[in-house]
Amino acid sequence: MTDDRLARAALSRLAEPGDRLVHALLTEHGAAATLERVRRGSGRLARFAERVRRLDVDRDLSTAAKVGARLVVPGDDEWPERLADLAIPPWCLWVRGPADLASATRRSVAVVGSRLSTAYGEQLAADLAAGVTQRGWTVISGAAFGIDGAAHRGALAVDGVTVAALAGGVDRPYPSGHARLIDRIAETGAVLSEVAPGSAPMRTRFLQRNRLIAAMAKGTVVVEADLRSGSLNTLGTAVELGRPVGVFPGPVTSMTSAGCHAKIRSGMATLVTGTAEVLDLVGDIGADACEEPRGEERPTDGLAPDDAKVHDGLPHRAWVDLAEVCNASALAPMQAMAALARLVELGLAERRDGSWRKANRRAG
Amino acid sequence: MTDDRLARAALSRLAEPGDRLVHALLTEHGAAATLERVRRGSGRLARFAERVRRLDVDRDLSTAAKVGARLVVPGDDEWPERLADLAIPPWCLWVRGPADLASATRRSVAVVGSRLSTAYGEQLAADLAAGVTQRGWTVISGAAFGIDGAAHRGALAVDGVTVAALAGGVDRPYPSGHARLIDRIAETGAVLSEVAPGSAPMRTRFLQRNRLIAAMAKGTVVVEADLRSGSLNTLGTAVELGRPVGVFPGPVTSMTSAGCHAKIRSGMATLVTGTAEVLDLVGDIGADACEEPRGEERPTDGLAPDDAKVHDGLPHRAWVDLAEVCNASALAPMQAMAALARLVELGLAERRDGSWRKANRRAG
Repeated sequence: MTDDRLARAALSRLAEPGDRLVHALLTEHGAAATLERVRRGSGRLARFAERVRRLDVDRDLSTAAKVGARLVVPGDDEWPERLADLAIPPWCLWVRGPADLASATRRSVAVVGSRLSTAYGEQLAADLAAGVTQRGWTVISGAAFGIDGAAHRGALAVDGVTVAALAGGVDRPYPSGHARLIDRIAETGAVLSEVAPGSAPMRTRFLQRNRLIAAMAKGTVVVEADLRSGSLNTLGTAVELGRPVGVFPGPVTSMTSAGCHAKIRSGMATLVTGTAEVLDLVGDIGADACEEPRGEERPTDGLAPDDAKVHDGLPHRAWVDLAEVCNASALAPMQAMAALARLVELGLAERRDGSWRKANRRAG
Repeated sequence: MTDDRLARAALSRLAEPGDRLVHALLTEHGAAATLERVRRGSGRLARFAERVRRLDVDRDLSTAAKVGARLVVPGDDEWPERLADLAIPPWCLWVRGPADLASATRRSVAVVGSRLSTAYGEQLAADLAAGVTQRGWTVISGAAFGIDGAAHRGALAVDGVTVAALAGGVDRPYPSGHARLIDRIAETGAVLSEVAPGSAPMRTRFLQRNRLIAAMAKGTVVVEADLRSGSLNTLGTAVELGRPVGVFPGPVTSMTSAGCHAKIRSGMATLVTGTAEVLDLVGDIGADACEEPRGEERPTDGLAPDDAKVHDGLPHRAWVDLAEVCNASALAPMQAMAALARLVELGLAERRDGSWRKANRRAG
């Protein structure tokens, strides 16, 4: 293994994701020299002393090997190129699963939301995940309870590739209740983390993990989110990165949609109601564009103004003469007669003995 | 009664609301001269012949008198001044009920929606109507089944003034199933129409009635609307008039919210979730502004970065020493000690024998 790879593996144990100082050093001196400085621990790097004392990269690599995880670093073919958009990209990624990360994330949607989801939101997340997966897109999420889990399951249900980003080590399925789900994701897709194997999931790591999800995906969709949901943080990153962001509305009486509604109100996110609109939002213009929803067409749609006036004034049952038609429509006899003839022709009016009424459409 | 009033009463029988030609004549020659031309019926005015033949203004006035309706014309103190914003204002209004139209509509919200409403939408409409009414606003709607009815009832339930605009004559309660509701509205508020007493409600008149609702109200809110709902037409008029427009979202699985979602997506309307946001939208800046919704506050909100890192890394049960804290937080011992001291002070951490853990908040 090259010094760069080993150094990045070590840094993923020593420095928290998003550490500004380590990022600055990495950018200037490269991974190996940065690791050397962190080890020496002078000045502001002294804070890493306890972690340096406990560092054992071989142990971390062997832990990764035991769960079949590999190390992916910038420059590898598999490195997702969108990560370069982050102010502070991951030092490396620990990845379980057969999916090639670069190809899997190229056309991908992050589907995230509240852990405290409702059956409504879970159904939407699963349907959306299945829908985008069937159109060749990858679903990225965080394997959490609630919406995340529903999204992964929806993708797996249609034999899709799905990617889960964890806040702790790639060998530590979290939440443990989703250990089986995470294994299933790793069987066909990818489970990844930017912190070293064995690392505990901590609150700040969840926030960093959320930024990772937003950065890997072409666009982000929030299905249900209360006002404090971490998924709004994911959405915030996607907005900062200039990525398309959609949220599903829900009943205003549901607190798990309150965060979604707030983001629509503030103009941060586009309201979406299903797969077609999501792909319209995140997809390639043309290839994935959807049509605007339209109501059911009525036979009277598109009638000329005079014809509409006459049709509007005709009774359903009673028969009326021309004077009544003129009175109801405020048209002169010639115009009313012409309109009546067109309506009869279109099957929208019936004539009998110089009287008219609306056509009985059931009989017609 | 002046010639102008009588002529406008007659025109409300002869010419449909929104008639361009009659509007042009009225603007140029005034009501009495316009009526005279319509009576003569030359040229394009010939189409009114049948209606002129049947005209009986005295009968219409006496029909109005029987239901206690009065005639209100432009220039009257009671004429709602916003109607002047319409491309083609009503010739006159026939009004039942004690409310002074000008004052009642000054601070008013149109609350409209689908006839095919759900319990969800009806509850929202009633709550919103009651909410705005209690803050001194008038609810304007169309007395239809569904959302309209729920809105009027919500206002009446808190003894509020509410205004109903009908598509047919003010003496013809429509729908007839709402005759009692319309009577109740007329007892304390106002029921009005721009067509002559006795006129039938027809489809084109519903569209004109909808424009009247939008024009009288300071702002318009749609609660539930399928893609073909007439309430979207009301909303369209409000947008054209430059008035604030809000819509309530709902489950994306409900077709009666599909029209609302489409209008939010197209940027025509603002998503609103309750009374405060509606008043924020239509109200006077400052007087009616609402605060942004916020999630429940957590005791750890607003912690300094070091304190948050340390708190994040502390276990809930097990006690950890300073080295563990430094390892978990990636802080040097001095900084970690200072943060621990602050957390203990804030009641967020506990100390025992040189070890720390998160404070047990239930016991605290």
